[in-house]
Amino acid sequence: MTIRLTVVNPNTTQSMTDLVEAQARLVAGADTVVTGRTPTMGPASIESHYDEALAVPGLLEVVRADHDADAFVLACFGDPGLDAAREAASRPVIGIAEAAMKTASLLGRSFSVVTTMSRTVGRAWDLTRTYGLERQCAGVHACDIPVLELEEDRARTYAVILSFAKSALAQDGSDAIVLGCAGMAGLPELLTDELGVPVVDGVAAATVLAEGLVRMGLRPSTHGELAPPPPKTYMGVLSQFGR
Amino acid sequence: MTIRLTVVNPNTTQSMTDLVEAQARLVAGADTVVTGRTPTMGPASIESHYDEALAVPGLLEVVRADHDADAFVLACFGDPGLDAAREAASRPVIGIAEAAMKTASLLGRSFSVVTTMSRTVGRAWDLTRTYGLERQCAGVHACDIPVLELEEDRARTYAVILSFAKSALAQDGSDAIVLGCAGMAGLPELLTDELGVPVVDGVAAATVLAEGLVRMGLRPSTHGELAPPPPKTYMGVLSQFGR
Amino acid sequence: MTIRLTVVNPNTTQSMTDLVEAQARLVAGADTVVTGRTPTMGPASIESHYDEALAVPGLLEVVRADHDADAFVLACFGDPGLDAAREAASRPVIGIAEAAMKTASLLGRSFSVVTTMSRTVGRAWDLTRTYGLERQCAGVHACDIPVLELEEDRARTYAVILSFAKSALAQDGSDAIVLGCAGMAGLPELLTDELGVPVVDGVAAATVLAEGLVRMGLRPSTHGELAPPPPKTYMGVLSQFGR
Amino acid sequence: MTIRLTVVNPNTTQSMTDLVEAQARLVAGADTVVTGRTPTMGPASIESHYDEALAVPGLLEVVRADHDADAFVLACFGDPGLDAAREAASRPVIGIAEAAMKTASLLGRSFSVVTTMSRTVGRAWDLTRTYGLERQCAGVHACDIPVLELEEDRARTYAVILSFAKSALAQDGSDAIVLGCAGMAGLPELLTDELGVPVVDGVAAATVLAEGLVRMGLRPSTHGELAPPPPKTYMGVLSQFGR
Amino acid sequence: MTIRLTVVNPNTTQSMTDLVEAQARLVAGADTVVTGRTPTMGPASIESHYDEALAVPGLLEVVRADHDADAFVLACFGDPGLDAAREAASRPVIGIAEAAMKTASLLGRSFSVVTTMSRTVGRAWDLTRTYGLERQCAGVHACDIPVLELEEDRARTYAVILSFAKSALAQDGSDAIVLGCAGMAGLPELLTDELGVPVVDGVAAATVLAEGLVRMGLRPSTHGELAPPPPKTYMGVLSQFGR
Amino acid sequence: MTIRLTVVNPNTTQSMTDLVEAQARLVAGADTVVTGRTPTMGPASIESHYDEALAVPGLLEVVRADHDADAFVLACFGDPGLDAAREAASRPVIGIAEAAMKTASLLGRSFSVVTTMSRTVGRAWDLTRTYGLERQCAGVHACDIPVLELEEDRARTYAVILSFAKSALAQDGSDAIVLGCAGMAGLPELLTDELGVPVVDGVAAATVLAEGLVRMGLRPSTHGELAPPPPKTYMGVLSQFGR
Repeated sequence: MTIRLTVVNPNTTQSMTDLVEAQARLVAGADTVVTGRTPTMGPASIESHYDEALAVPGLLEVVRADHDADAFVLACFGDPGLDAAREAASRPVIGIAEAAMKTASLLGRSFSVVTTMSRTVGRAWDLTRTYGLERQCAGVHACDIPVLELEEDRARTYAVILSFAKSALAQDGSDAIVLGCAGMAGLPELLTDELGVPVVDGVAAATVLAEGLVRMGLRPSTHGELAPPPPKTYMGVLSQFGR
Repeated sequence: MTIRLTVVNPNTTQSMTDLVEAQARLVAGADTVVTGRTPTMGPASIESHYDEALAVPGLLEVVRADHDADAFVLACFGDPGLDAAREAASRPVIGIAEAAMKTASLLGRSFSVVTTMSRTVGRAWDLTRTYGLERQCAGVHACDIPVLELEEDRARTYAVILSFAKSALAQDGSDAIVLGCAGMAGLPELLTDELGVPVVDGVAAATVLAEGLVRMGLRPSTHGELAPPPPKTYMGVLSQFGR
Repeated sequence: MTIRLTVVNPNTTQSMTDLVEAQARLVAGADTVVTGRTPTMGPASIESHYDEALAVPGLLEVVRADHDADAFVLACFGDPGLDAAREAASRPVIGIAEAAMKTASLLGRSFSVVTTMSRTVGRAWDLTRTYGLERQCAGVHACDIPVLELEEDRARTYAVILSFAKSALAQDGSDAIVLGCAGMAGLPELLTDELGVPVVDGVAAATVLAEGLVRMGLRPSTHGELAPPPPKTYMGVLSQFGR
Repeated sequence: MTIRLTVVNPNTTQSMTDLVEAQARLVAGADTVVTGRTPTMGPASIESHYDEALAVPGLLEVVRADHDADAFVLACFGDPGLDAAREAASRPVIGIAEAAMKTASLLGRSFSVVTTMSRTVGRAWDLTRTYGLERQCAGVHACDIPVLELEEDRARTYAVILSFAKSALAQDGSDAIVLGCAGMAGLPELLTDELGVPVVDGVAAATVLAEGLVRMGLRPSTHGELAPPPPKTYMGVLSQFGR
Repeated sequence: MTIRLTVVNPNTTQSMTDLVEAQARLVAGADTVVTGRTPTMGPASIESHYDEALAVPGLLEVVRADHDADAFVLACFGDPGLDAAREAASRPVIGIAEAAMKTASLLGRSFSVVTTMSRTVGRAWDLTRTYGLERQCAGVHACDIPVLELEEDRARTYAVILSFAKSALAQDGSDAIVLGCAGMAGLPELLTDELGVPVVDGVAAATVLAEGLVRMGLRPSTHGELAPPPPKTYMGVLSQFGR
Repeated sequence: MTIRLTVVNPNTTQSMTDLVEAQARLVAGADTVVTGRTPTMGPASIESHYDEALAVPGLLEVVRADHDADAFVLACFGDPGLDAAREAASRPVIGIAEAAMKTASLLGRSFSVVTTMSRTVGRAWDLTRTYGLERQCAGVHACDIPVLELEEDRARTYAVILSFAKSALAQDGSDAIVLGCAGMAGLPELLTDELGVPVVDGVAAATVLAEGLVRMGLRPSTHGELAPPPPKTYMGVLSQFGR
């Protein structure tokens, strides 16, 4: 059974698309075809509510144009536009924050999140509540490396995140680390070895969850809240989104 | 003290902008100048997560272009893009769902929401949780009149909403009604007289709250989560949103 | 439209009534007539559950005797007797804790409360839960200045509260300050300028909320939990409260 | 070891004091001396927030005057003035709502409350939240017999409450009944036999809890929130409460 | 990469072990070796807290003896002994209730559980709270077919469960069905086709989750709460569990 | 009225049974006959989920064999097998964690727990949630003395626990101490005198609660979730538990 999985990078930086595609391939099953995709519109990285909101049209365009995928992974830790993408896709769409947190919750009592910018810490806590895991999240820690700099010097990135992860475990008394940015893909194995606790990357976690749903034949319900949106006129530069 | 208040209708239908502008004027103080604004891009009405996400660029464009307003009202009951708008505005931005629910919570133990489409009921419950009012919200009831039809036959709209409000009060044992759509502006006074309980319209509620914040000299903090977003490149048809 | 607003100081100290009356006038609309009132019975200040309970008869006497007010503000941060006053008034009654917290919640992710006595900290947390804002309240900090000393040396009061507010913002990572005592009215503007975050005084916040409700024509429901209390015999020194 | 237990009826109706005193005696240990007391001021019965607030001065007067009691039972299901009484007493004070609900929670998954007036139902739910038992309370059902009529025709009272209890168990799928008024004391044994589930009366439950605390030598802490209130001047007809 | 997965049936009925082993095979990847195991001690089926507690020694014996498995699935919807098994295994252990509920939560707003005996409904709600999904669980419905009868007449079982699932969806307004018993394995595909909503079987869901954890190289932390239990003497018929 | 109370020590160490029996006698009424019982199977002490699960068969054997007891106390702070024991007993069964926490909640705003091993801290927090007291529990502090060493040097045990209790009160700002292990019975009186706050031992608290239920004639409902378990075959070394 061949599974086609599209990993959408919701920002417009191609090198990050390459990174998350590679990470997804690493854990995907032998029969799964992974394709990374980059939007044609929107911000170069996502570091505010403003960026997050303006990343959604681009990722919806990708989802609407891809009729072949069996499932989608949204590779931004804010899970932007997740419900809108589910409406547009009528196939499984997995956000990496939801995937990482729910996976970590299977492994122990509590996890700590290590993320990028301080101003997104509140948003990460919001997501723990949306997913029912506020009690299992023992702390959210921002290393304040801007998203696009994560790739620039991987050794430094590794060192900084290792250091934040160590102090998070000590301070929070937690059992696991969740990496709070798609740009941290590629780090979990090294970190797991070093830290002695499970380190969960959302891209990997979302990839195996998406495959699992496809293998079980599960899709969102076609009626109710996530049914395809009612068609209507759209104006201006967004007119392509109407029907 | 003159207060300039901009009421943003996040969909692209001008007649709805006119309606909400009129409603805001009705309750605004004598010294307040109310201006309604319509976006140049996005959906004709908001009836899904998809529509809601795609309404946000248009409303952010309005907020960014309006340097004169002392405060903004977002006139859609889903409060789309509220945090992004607060980042972009650096001035008070009040969503009508938050305004209506918090106002109703000052008047009694519990309220019922009467809204438009069934598929948005879950979203309304999400908002009650975001605003800490899930316990005071006794029920959410959808009348399933599409948003743009609310205006077509005001007598029928009034009759249907009156009927839903009556059964909501009886079924939920609640003390107040919250109208769950900007397109219901104009109805609260009639309904209050008929029902004998307070009926709260979000546009009116947001208008007086926004004025109050301006009179007290309160603005969002300029550092922290709602500080102006970090400038960066935006691609494609959304390139105007970058810097 | 003239609005008559009565600000009830629930303790028996006239100078505090003068203070809160002045603060309300500062933010009230041009057409609003503000009257401060002091009870004839009860404690000189409210600093325990015991004081709070025994302040309620006095404030209820004020409310029952005032047939002209369109709305009432209860100027004690514990919101004592709020539901009882709503039953007795059949008009809007706004407590300053509820007003301050709900106003702060419109401005950012979280607020810190700076209050007077340590023994009231738990009570402040109870109120955040009653109003659904326990998640948005990031901390409650007691400066341990007795209520009536707040007025004695305003410069010292200002300095102490400024210092507590600064450390609260740093420690809690919050976006706003809520002043946790009616006796702190008059300070918010100075503090806002100094701290760079919104500082919310409950007397001001309750004043604009009460005006807003009157302008929208909203009153508590006349049936249900807050209907006028069933008449009955009262004994002893409280016999005036019966009918 | 002789235990002196004072049962305070917070309303001014002597026959209800007699009833609750008798009920407490029924379950008290052989060495316990039970004394019922009636306040000299306040309402004849408690059926609103207004009555409840105005019952508190009378019960505080009783508690302050009684230096012999080892512990107090507050015999009104709203637990009025409980924290104030604990401050004034420096000895255990048990409210009958807290006692009944916590006792019922030891016996099964969930309980239903059968209470008097519909307008107090919301207050009963508030108490379940205060005591952390909102999940175990499966329903609150008002029989709408005014408090003082409960005593008038005990056979009718029994029949009505039996009928409400039966339908509560069926409708809520609960395992136990909590009687929601001190005036229902005396009914639990009959009801338990008839219904086949435990029926908990708060006066009985509070009596054995108060005795237990005395036998274990436990009293509220003398510092912190429930320490004796700071002495101060009281005005007018309440001047006796000051020091 | 070959993955060895052990599916433990915590009751002692071999035919149920065969059923869950077959269901796990159906969704497992090509390289996964699935082995079903039956305990040597304990109840023939699990239908009470008593049965559940007494099933745990048997399943722990299986887990302790199996050194080859990369991960374990616990095939009883009460997830009995899950934390104890994690301590004993030091490898991933997935309970089918946790797996089914977390999988359903990826597909829509809410799910309904269809389970076996009425007396386990409260336990199912407890699990939704343990896993943070009490809000997404819209209802728990018991069909009252004893566990071992589920297998006797598969056509009747299918018909009864289909009927309960239909009424659950209608009554709860939910988007998905969770099957609340390991003995319902084998039904989800048929039901999904008939109902038009996703139907999640816990054995399938746990199988793909367990595989995913192994592929990502994730194991529980070896220190902290789920570390191997401290060795000690065990008495009597359980002496084999000591060291 | 003679009350027969059985105190079950769920581990197999006789000296701990003697200790808890003595503590129960200290607070029991004059007419109560207290009997301590030790299981014939299971772990010597309970310090992990694994130990806790494997202690349950032994305690259920004790409960099933004791037809004379009017009520049972389960003397382990994890309250292992509580619901199973209630099904097996059809009489009141009180766990010492539930008893201690609910008793402490009657005395002030918050309590701190002082327990034995760090790895059980998460479990103690789980219990606070099960009993609805997570808000009143201000902290859980592990002294990391293994359970069986508590008895070895009572002076050292007293000193260590006193020290942890002092720092818990200071750090948590709490009003009371809950002792988190049956092996700490005998210490509360000394500690109460030294600390000036109530110190609650679960064995004492459960003893007076169990007596109270018996005196009120209350038993668990004989239908519903805690009804006697359905009889069935049990296999292997646990075959005695079947019927």
